[in-house]
Amino acid sequence: MNRYRLLILFLCIINLNSFAKDGYKLWLQYDFIENESLRKEYQSHIKRLIPFGDSETINIGLNELERGLSGMLGEVYLSKVNKSNINDYVLVLGSKASLSHDISSLLEKEFNTINEEGFIIKSITLKGKKQIVISGKTDVGVLYGVFNFLRLIQTNKSIKNLSIVDAPKLKVRVLNHWDNLDRTVERGYSGASIWDWHRLPDYIDQRYIDYARANASIGINGTVLNNVNANALILTPQYLEKVKALANIFRPYGIKVYLTARFSAPIEIGGLKTADPLDAGVINWWKDKTAEIYKSIPDFGGFLVKANSEGQPGPQNYDRNHVDGANMMAEAVAPFGGIVMWRAFVYSEHDANDRAKQAYTEFVPYDGQFKDNVLIQVKNGAIDFQPREPFHPMFGAMPKTPLMMEFQITQEYLGCSTHSVFLPTMYKEVLDADTYRKGKASTVAKVIDGTLDNKKLTGMAGVSNIGADRNWTGNVFLQANWYGFGRLAWNPYLTSENIADEWIKSTFSNANDFVQPVKEFMLASLEATVNYMTPLGLHHIMATGHHYGPGPWVSNLSRPEWNPVYYHKADAQGIGFDRSTSGSNAVEQYAPEVAKMFNDLNTCPEEFLLWFHHVAWDYKLKNGKTLWDGMALKYQEGVNQVEAMLKTWNAMKPYVDFQRYNEVKMLLNIQYKEAKWWRDACLLYFQQYSKKTLPKGVEAPTKTLNYFESLKFPFAPGN
Amino acid sequence: MNRYRLLILFLCIINLNSFAKDGYKLWLQYDFIENESLRKEYQSHIKRLIPFGDSETINIGLNELERGLSGMLGEVYLSKVNKSNINDYVLVLGSKASLSHDISSLLEKEFNTINEEGFIIKSITLKGKKQIVISGKTDVGVLYGVFNFLRLIQTNKSIKNLSIVDAPKLKVRVLNHWDNLDRTVERGYSGASIWDWHRLPDYIDQRYIDYARANASIGINGTVLNNVNANALILTPQYLEKVKALANIFRPYGIKVYLTARFSAPIEIGGLKTADPLDAGVINWWKDKTAEIYKSIPDFGGFLVKANSEGQPGPQNYDRNHVDGANMMAEAVAPFGGIVMWRAFVYSEHDANDRAKQAYTEFVPYDGQFKDNVLIQVKNGAIDFQPREPFHPMFGAMPKTPLMMEFQITQEYLGCSTHSVFLPTMYKEVLDADTYRKGKASTVAKVIDGTLDNKKLTGMAGVSNIGADRNWTGNVFLQANWYGFGRLAWNPYLTSENIADEWIKSTFSNANDFVQPVKEFMLASLEATVNYMTPLGLHHIMATGHHYGPGPWVSNLSRPEWNPVYYHKADAQGIGFDRSTSGSNAVEQYAPEVAKMFNDLNTCPEEFLLWFHHVAWDYKLKNGKTLWDGMALKYQEGVNQVEAMLKTWNAMKPYVDFQRYNEVKMLLNIQYKEAKWWRDACLLYFQQYSKKTLPKGVEAPTKTLNYFESLKFPFAPGN
Repeated sequence: MNRYRLLILFLCIINLNSFAKDGYKLWLQYDFIENESLRKEYQSHIKRLIPFGDSETINIGLNELERGLSGMLGEVYLSKVNKSNINDYVLVLGSKASLSHDISSLLEKEFNTINEEGFIIKSITLKGKKQIVISGKTDVGVLYGVFNFLRLIQTNKSIKNLSIVDAPKLKVRVLNHWDNLDRTVERGYSGASIWDWHRLPDYIDQRYIDYARANASIGINGTVLNNVNANALILTPQYLEKVKALANIFRPYGIKVYLTARFSAPIEIGGLKTADPLDAGVINWWKDKTAEIYKSIPDFGGFLVKANSEGQPGPQNYDRNHVDGANMMAEAVAPFGGIVMWRAFVYSEHDANDRAKQAYTEFVPYDGQFKDNVLIQVKNGAIDFQPREPFHPMFGAMPKTPLMMEFQITQEYLGCSTHSVFLPTMYKEVLDADTYRKGKASTVAKVIDGTLDNKKLTGMAGVSNIGADRNWTGNVFLQANWYGFGRLAWNPYLTSENIADEWIKSTFSNANDFVQPVKEFMLASLEATVNYMTPLGLHHIMATGHHYGPGPWVSNLSRPEWNPVYYHKADAQGIGFDRSTSGSNAVEQYAPEVAKMFNDLNTCPEEFLLWFHHVAWDYKLKNGKTLWDGMALKYQEGVNQVEAMLKTWNAMKPYVDFQRYNEVKMLLNIQYKEAKWWRDACLLYFQQYSKKTLPKGVEAPTKTLNYFESLKFPFAPGN
Repeated sequence: MNRYRLLILFLCIINLNSFAKDGYKLWLQYDFIENESLRKEYQSHIKRLIPFGDSETINIGLNELERGLSGMLGEVYLSKVNKSNINDYVLVLGSKASLSHDISSLLEKEFNTINEEGFIIKSITLKGKKQIVISGKTDVGVLYGVFNFLRLIQTNKSIKNLSIVDAPKLKVRVLNHWDNLDRTVERGYSGASIWDWHRLPDYIDQRYIDYARANASIGINGTVLNNVNANALILTPQYLEKVKALANIFRPYGIKVYLTARFSAPIEIGGLKTADPLDAGVINWWKDKTAEIYKSIPDFGGFLVKANSEGQPGPQNYDRNHVDGANMMAEAVAPFGGIVMWRAFVYSEHDANDRAKQAYTEFVPYDGQFKDNVLIQVKNGAIDFQPREPFHPMFGAMPKTPLMMEFQITQEYLGCSTHSVFLPTMYKEVLDADTYRKGKASTVAKVIDGTLDNKKLTGMAGVSNIGADRNWTGNVFLQANWYGFGRLAWNPYLTSENIADEWIKSTFSNANDFVQPVKEFMLASLEATVNYMTPLGLHHIMATGHHYGPGPWVSNLSRPEWNPVYYHKADAQGIGFDRSTSGSNAVEQYAPEVAKMFNDLNTCPEEFLLWFHHVAWDYKLKNGKTLWDGMALKYQEGVNQVEAMLKTWNAMKPYVDFQRYNEVKMLLNIQYKEAKWWRDACLLYFQQYSKKTLPKGVEAPTKTLNYFESLKFPFAPGN
């Protein structure tokens, strides 16, 4: 046995040596379980794999089980054995229709509680034999069950007496790739686009397959391949052939392909003179184009449209409105079961009113006028993916219209890929927020999952942080945001703590001395970032264009609402955007209970103080400090929190392979440096107005405001 | 023993499963040697590793030996044992100065024959003990020896009685990265730039280290980090700090960092009003800038300059000449031991003469006027990296000036990264070409290595094909071109066959049934590509801008010499560019013997026929066919050759891991498709002039010329 162990050890060394963990495998590491008794227990419950059905999807599930179990348990699993020869401790997988009747009949009750994508994992005894069954109404349901079963083992859960029934609470769970056809990625911080359009359809990058695996493992069932600032060429036959190749790869993983549709495509690639949504030629062009797409991609998901926003064309170019535009496209895809996701992210340069109010103003009057297959896609907050925003007032305000959530996974305003920020915490803040639209407990999650207003079509979109960097997200830690988005799109009621726990264990280690501190650090990371960037409700004070680093001084951009000074309104009296009834009255867009709370300086949560109020520098915060002192201390607190995260991580070295350990360490060092940059630049700038000294406990800046204002980053990524 | 083997087998399966070979490890695979007797023989000769010296470089060599030997021989090597306890069969490494005297004294003769970068690998017997010594005059020499020793094992050579002495024949062996600061790569087909400028200097990508390892393994000792179409920002402190971080990583691998210098930098970042090379302010600016660089990078290599070429600024903007410009910069770097690589790739839009003549015309008169530390960097041919060009007439024509070779490794005109073309064959055609400048056997290689004209400063540059794609070069096969470039820069007299042999064995397998057919296919691949793209001396008939695919019809570009019709001059009489004495007289730029050969239709090699002559469609080729028939058959032959390559590769499946096998297969399929595209488009186009039918054996096109002319690729990469 000793020589045995030595050999294992030796081969493990070679292994580590030759294949450093570079993060490519994401949360599907399937690391060997070192704990022998635990491993033996798992082994004792899985002696054979028996698949029922022979679809591509079932085979994918089977392969994943073989890969995952052999990795974690160190045994090679032989599947496809003679089915009559079923021993004790068999792992059976198959859809309801494929399972043998004696098995499926045992699951009748469970089948009645799940939807088409749900799954069942159950320990049963059949003719005295113990089995675990993974099933669902569809093969894709079974595949979701497989990944969830593997996750049980990845997180060292017991598989003794399983009785798990789960199904997604949202229907459309999509990534939005802001990827351009030239492989640049708008707001991308992880290298080039993973879509190698030039070599598609004939070259199938292994990454496409692993992308599909990763998404299926967390229940993502759709992907919008191209940028919302769209190029019409994606709708030409040359590109549709490439899209088809991707759709073919993703199909067995339960993932549908969607495209962004440039509203002016009928002109640009159709040769028409107009894109007017009420023009018969335009209507027909979209119908024909849609039919052409469905001919080669029968399960094409539909279109995502950014219309009349930031220069994109839309129905308003023809004096039509969002309903005209969305419904015209919805009619084109309806015969094929497709949907239209119409973005609510609009703000007009001609509207001098508070930008935060514009989407609501423009969309809410149309409630009830959109076709059944239209989802209005609403960003989590009314401005634009800030480190912290109050929930978007549209949620709950359009009871007759299905609204889908748009979260940003990529960190446009959150330090690119260098800052380790666990975003599910932020997503949960929004999902758990109470709209009060139907009384207390009318949470955003209930709007989104359709239960508040009885909606069938529901969805959540996440603007992807994925690129061609080997570790997908530029920073191993940010894989957790892709993971967390998927898990919340499946079930918006999961806690961010549970998500962090699953992700840490699946990605790194189950060792308690690792899991606990890292979880704490992850759960604190959003607050840290808000503190060193935009504490107390500050927002949109980032540098211009690339949004990398602080820029509260910027005031020279052509549109007023592009300038940070528009948002913070610092002056000799104080700081903050007055959105109360005495100001822009944006509070009015919320339900009365919420409006009242935000409107009153005393009840407004301090994390949104400067979002809703212009507050005097001497205003006393709840902790007794003045606003100036409190703000300065918040900036310092953010820096201290990052320092603590770094310290925590440095102690984790024994638990992580060197490459991933070292990469995270280098990135936390950058984050620490940049947190200080944010603190110093913002405090020096605001100090010009407050005319007050820094309170005790806040480190003095080592550079001047002039220095910070002089910094230029012409090639900051993602711009 | 059986259980033992089973376990190995099992762990190997897991291994393969979890870590598919994605090409990242290049030719440093260090695969386990399956042949037991061979493995045992190696093991018997290496019992211990003993390093002398403790520099970073020596430790890198030691680590590489441990990694390589444990991978190939399956044993863990324990180095740093007590040196007094030297047993039989020790592998010793160390520089001349570090080795113990009793060892170094045995190598006196060898040390006398090598230069500073050379190495010795020798079997010795010391006090009755058998040892292998890897040494050199410098630690970097030792490192080169280490990689060469590992290559012996990688290629299954005997290590019984070693006596290898080798040293590089060229001094400056550099990659040129045409990488922009925004991470796009001009003529890059392998994803984004590997230089993640935004995250430098604080984030050190593992890839930087592996890049250095790979380069050191083939003797590359320099890298020009940025595009020759340069941005002056690289010379600002913000970027120099990042450059320094890279230089620090590369230094112990013997790799120097160079930068391209934008000639107008004194204006753009220096605030001067001029960049006139004779202006005292400008001269001082470059001196100060250079001193600033050397302060943080003491071994900075120097500058590469593209001046007055394709819109780049240069001395001619101030009525100065190349000598003025190059010497001014050379003086700035000279005190620090730096060099200037001044590109000869110039052609003026105001010169109506044959573009092929312009570099020679502009540079040769300056022979002898450049400073000692200036290298004139000359492309292999007089046009621009065509699939096949005659050697550049400047080689041999400037005996008082050191000329360095510029090869293109990236495939701007050779099918991007999709076409598998083994370029060392092309490099060798040029290196072996005879300039006759000092009589017969005055090869280009002898110009380049300085032996023809007794030059001390020598060099070779390769325009890199490296990007952030996981396999570095977008196509595993094109790793061979990086490898081959490095090997030829070390020794331009190596044969392409030997290079292919080494590369195949180090990258894939030593199995003879694999090595032979794959080597044949690689050695035939250039001819195939020339045949289906530009047979018989045709050139520059690619599509506009991106150069992807055929475009012989293009005639509307603003500068005449940008148009394919300028180069092929097809008309009713015939086809080809008359560069003979009756034409542009470009032949005159060669030595009389060469000029005579090219000038005479009967002695001009047919591969350059249409390069030098406008030839009638009915002209009889050496094989008896008419020019038209012969050309058509060449196009068909190219297609057939790719088909054969594909067939060969398909049979190689048993020898290669699935991922790399399948990727190459998909790419060969694309190449086959595109070879037919080239054939059909070119023949249909030229047929308009020849008015002749396709000869027997040439497949009829399935699409029309109109169709081919209508194809547009606005997002083809590398543009």
